[in-house]
Amino acid sequence: MILEERVAVPVSRPPIRLMVVIGSVRPGRLGLAVALWVHESVAKFGGFDVDFVDLAELDLPFMNEPKHPKHREYRHKHTIAWGERVDAADAFLFVAPEYNHSYSPALKNALDYLHHEWQGKPVGLVSYGDLAGGTRGVTALRPVLSALAMVGTESNVEIPYVARQIDDGFFEPTDRQADKLTLMLDELGRLSPALRSVRGATLLTA
Amino acid sequence: MILEERVAVPVSRPPIRLMVVIGSVRPGRLGLAVALWVHESVAKFGGFDVDFVDLAELDLPFMNEPKHPKHREYRHKHTIAWGERVDAADAFLFVAPEYNHSYSPALKNALDYLHHEWQGKPVGLVSYGDLAGGTRGVTALRPVLSALAMVGTESNVEIPYVARQIDDGFFEPTDRQADKLTLMLDELGRLSPALRSVRGATLLTA
Repeated sequence: MILEERVAVPVSRPPIRLMVVIGSVRPGRLGLAVALWVHESVAKFGGFDVDFVDLAELDLPFMNEPKHPKHREYRHKHTIAWGERVDAADAFLFVAPEYNHSYSPALKNALDYLHHEWQGKPVGLVSYGDLAGGTRGVTALRPVLSALAMVGTESNVEIPYVARQIDDGFFEPTDRQADKLTLMLDELGRLSPALRSVRGATLLTA
Repeated sequence: MILEERVAVPVSRPPIRLMVVIGSVRPGRLGLAVALWVHESVAKFGGFDVDFVDLAELDLPFMNEPKHPKHREYRHKHTIAWGERVDAADAFLFVAPEYNHSYSPALKNALDYLHHEWQGKPVGLVSYGDLAGGTRGVTALRPVLSALAMVGTESNVEIPYVARQIDDGFFEPTDRQADKLTLMLDELGRLSPALRSVRGATLLTA
C-alpha cells in the first residue's frame, strides 16, 4: 500500500463575482456611505470581482411582469437585463436599511423580480438604522431570502445609530464592525464555491 | 336619589370614511377581483364612505422624500396629495398579496411615505395567496402596522388558492370568507370612533 503524499499546491481560483447592492434609493440615504465603506473593504480583502448595484440607478419599476418569475419568461427589457446581471453573480452582499421596523420596498422589489437567478447563492447583510441597527429589517428579510433559496452568512454587520458614524459622506467603522465584515467576506468566499454544485438543482422540479 | 332613565335614542352617526387599498400593482394581479368583491360587500354593509385606492393608478415612486415622514415636511406633490387622502380616512382595509413569503413592496412603500396620517386608525386585512392564503405577507406586515400605531382588527379574511375562486375577473367568496369580512367591517365601524380620541396624541412627543 502506497501512502499518498499530500502536497500543498497553490490553487489559482477564479475570483468570486460579488454583487454589492445598496438597498435604499431615498435621497439623502445613509446607506450610500456604508456601501462605499463595504466596497473599499471588499477591494482590500481581495479575491472578489465586485458588481456594485445602486438600485436608484437601476431604477426598476414595481414588479410588472405578468408571469411568476419561476417561469423565467420575462416580458420586459429591464427584467431580462436584471436577470442576466444577477445570474452572473456568485454571491451577494446587501446593504440594508430599516423602514418602519422592516425592510425597504426597493430591495424587496429587486428580489421579487427574479427567482432561479438567486437560488443556491450565499448572501451577507450589512444592516443599519438607529437603536435596532437595522436588525428588524433583516429579520423581516430572512423568510424572503429563504423563499428564494439563498444561503445567509452567519456573520453579518449591524450598525446602530449609523448617522453618528458618518462624517461628510464617509462611514467610519468600529473595529468590531470591520472584523465582522471580514468574517462575512471570508464566509462568502467559502460558501460560494461550496454551493456551486447545488445550483440549478431545483430547476428540475419547478 | 333619582334613578336615571335610559332611553334608546337613535343616533345619527356620520359615515366612516373607509379607504380600501389594492396592495398589488402587477399586471394580471388577482387582487383586483378580490378588491371588487370587498368594495361591493362594503356598499352592502352600509355606514361607510369608501375611498377606493388602486396603487397602480396612484403610481407613487419609491419613497423619495429626503426627510423622515415623522416631520411631516413633504417636498413632493405626490406625497402631499397622498398625505391628505390618508388623513381624510377614518379606517383602512388592505387587500394584501404575498410575494416570496412576505408583503408586496407597493403596499409597504405607500405606508412608508407617511406617519401621523396612519396613527390611531383601525385597519383590516384581506390577504390572498396560494397554500398560505397570504398569511405570511400579513405576518410580515404586522410590525409595520404596529410601528405606524395602526390598530389591527381581530377578524381578517384569508384566501388560500385564490385563483380557484376567480372566474372571468369575478371573485366568488365562501360563506366563511363573507362572514369574516362582515365581522371585520363591524369591528372597523366600532374601532374607528372609539380610537378618535387618541389620534394625534403622539404628535406631541414626536
